[in-house]
Amino acid sequence: MRRDLEETESMRRELKVILYGVGSIGSQIARLILKKKGLKIVGAIDASPEKAKRDLGEVIGVKKNLGVSIFQDPEKLFSTVDADIAVHATSSFLRDVYPQLISLIEHDLNVISTCEELSYPYVADASLASNLDELAVEHGVTVLGTGVNPGFLMDTLPIVLSGVCQEIRHIRVERVIDAAKRRLQFQKKIGAGLSRGEFEKMMAEKKITGHVGLKQSIAMIADALGLNLQRIDVKPVKPILAEKTVKSREISVDSGRVAGLMQSAHGIIDGRTFVTLVFKAYIGAEEEYDSISIDGTPSIQQKIKPCVHGDLATAAIVVNSIPKVINAPSGLKTMKDLPVPSAVMDDVRRYLEAH
Amino acid sequence: MRRDLEETESMRRELKVILYGVGSIGSQIARLILKKKGLKIVGAIDASPEKAKRDLGEVIGVKKNLGVSIFQDPEKLFSTVDADIAVHATSSFLRDVYPQLISLIEHDLNVISTCEELSYPYVADASLASNLDELAVEHGVTVLGTGVNPGFLMDTLPIVLSGVCQEIRHIRVERVIDAAKRRLQFQKKIGAGLSRGEFEKMMAEKKITGHVGLKQSIAMIADALGLNLQRIDVKPVKPILAEKTVKSREISVDSGRVAGLMQSAHGIIDGRTFVTLVFKAYIGAEEEYDSISIDGTPSIQQKIKPCVHGDLATAAIVVNSIPKVINAPSGLKTMKDLPVPSAVMDDVRRYLEAH
Repeated sequence: MRRDLEETESMRRELKVILYGVGSIGSQIARLILKKKGLKIVGAIDASPEKAKRDLGEVIGVKKNLGVSIFQDPEKLFSTVDADIAVHATSSFLRDVYPQLISLIEHDLNVISTCEELSYPYVADASLASNLDELAVEHGVTVLGTGVNPGFLMDTLPIVLSGVCQEIRHIRVERVIDAAKRRLQFQKKIGAGLSRGEFEKMMAEKKITGHVGLKQSIAMIADALGLNLQRIDVKPVKPILAEKTVKSREISVDSGRVAGLMQSAHGIIDGRTFVTLVFKAYIGAEEEYDSISIDGTPSIQQKIKPCVHGDLATAAIVVNSIPKVINAPSGLKTMKDLPVPSAVMDDVRRYLEAH
Repeated sequence: MRRDLEETESMRRELKVILYGVGSIGSQIARLILKKKGLKIVGAIDASPEKAKRDLGEVIGVKKNLGVSIFQDPEKLFSTVDADIAVHATSSFLRDVYPQLISLIEHDLNVISTCEELSYPYVADASLASNLDELAVEHGVTVLGTGVNPGFLMDTLPIVLSGVCQEIRHIRVERVIDAAKRRLQFQKKIGAGLSRGEFEKMMAEKKITGHVGLKQSIAMIADALGLNLQRIDVKPVKPILAEKTVKSREISVDSGRVAGLMQSAHGIIDGRTFVTLVFKAYIGAEEEYDSISIDGTPSIQQKIKPCVHGDLATAAIVVNSIPKVINAPSGLKTMKDLPVPSAVMDDVRRYLEAH
């Protein structure tokens, strides 16, 4: 629903949410929404035929019927319900989600998406990003891509820390995850259990992707700091091989096989590296952490240990962003454009501004 | 100058800055402003007769004449120069700075102040805060209180981290400073070198204040998270006594005398402590750090080590906030209302939005 209509009513009634994508992350977001006052899920969409027509409550595992049937065809849902915002969790890639986002915007829905490339979409496809922005402005809605990473740990948080720096020579951000503590889907995404050859083949065929978002995070940092990047060097993904047999609850990886992966990317300015991002996720990582080192005036050495739990945090930042997106001016936004992130701990309507 | 006037011009010319308060922090801010492109100091005010009529460059120690005479009487300066923003650093207390801020706003100046109580002024005096807000809106200017603490380390940063939490049971923030590494004025403010009796007498007579801002930080966190605080318990300031002789470059503290102090405050909700802030500054602190522990879903353990250098960071966040304040809607704002903090690394005009 457009923000410029029915302001008073929107301050009073629950915010109506459509869930677009009822996979693992979408389900976690849905379960969190159900715990928050002031939000009501009024519709759900998923492409999977197995989920079609089933009740959302059953699919997300809350053991009660929510009276919300999952639609395979978004247009059919849009013709039957009206909502304030769509929470979208279908794919990591901008080109895949673009038609879905267009359809949501055309139905006057604000959008928060976990699509990694949408966190800073200008580097994936500037023209698609520009179309989304224009259409969102035209429809008076706000579109945001967010998540724990990209969206927070390797971009928003270093940007926030830069706020107390007079000058900065280099920023290094690392995220190291022990994949043994994560779900099987995540372990598969990082190639755990494959041989080195299988890993390289599946990576080349894009059957596994690793972490998507280093490029977006670097571009967001550079934009926030007002720097002209010469280029972003995204290094080839490297497998991390198990040095001994390592195990998670779901999987056992023999010595010499792939335990996970290491990715890095560098933002280059004037021929020198200004930002370095390093992402490691593998079964058996001894120390899990998120660290940010700013070499500057002052220098800042920050560490979060253990690393922030990805799935819990992604569901959190999506739901916590709902009032911020509703309050924001219309258009395509990134995390650096919004007020500081913060937890929603009361009725979501409490955080809405009168426009 | 009001933002609604001369937009095009303001995007082209340097932003004109008035410096209100040329003490230690004001001088550091001024030196940083001189390093940034797009900013020009056009006037300076200081109450001290020793600084009156001297050139700002000489007083702040940059060894060149800036062609900016320091005025004792603000009104006299305002009648001769026009500016976009005032950077204000005179006192920690809202009641002291209130008439100064009123005068700045009445001259259509945006204001960034290091006044600790202004970082979240509603808990010092809600009526003065409300007057400032109304007057700022009337004059089309924005007023912000900020600094490293309050303003960042014990409020904005925990608020930002809460953004990836689904629920929070408790937040604990600690700042521990080795005062040996700080300037003499800071060492005096925390009572270093006094006997315990002298410390208690000077504290009672408000001749030393310790850190001002724990109450503001707690109130800002609660407001950002949408929580109704039952009360804020600010504990009496405790001296930390030297266990052996400890030294800084400026001062030597014998065993048994005051090396510094410890302060704490608690934000209480429904009869239980939701936020705990602990501030320690003393000569000889072995480990300097800023830590944030969130007991929640997920829990977050964050540490910055060594602690962020206070003076460098305060000058930084004041200057880095200039474009954000110029871009913000008019009125009295706090850090939680603005977009995420970020470093100004290029011409300040680059960060200005076309309104």
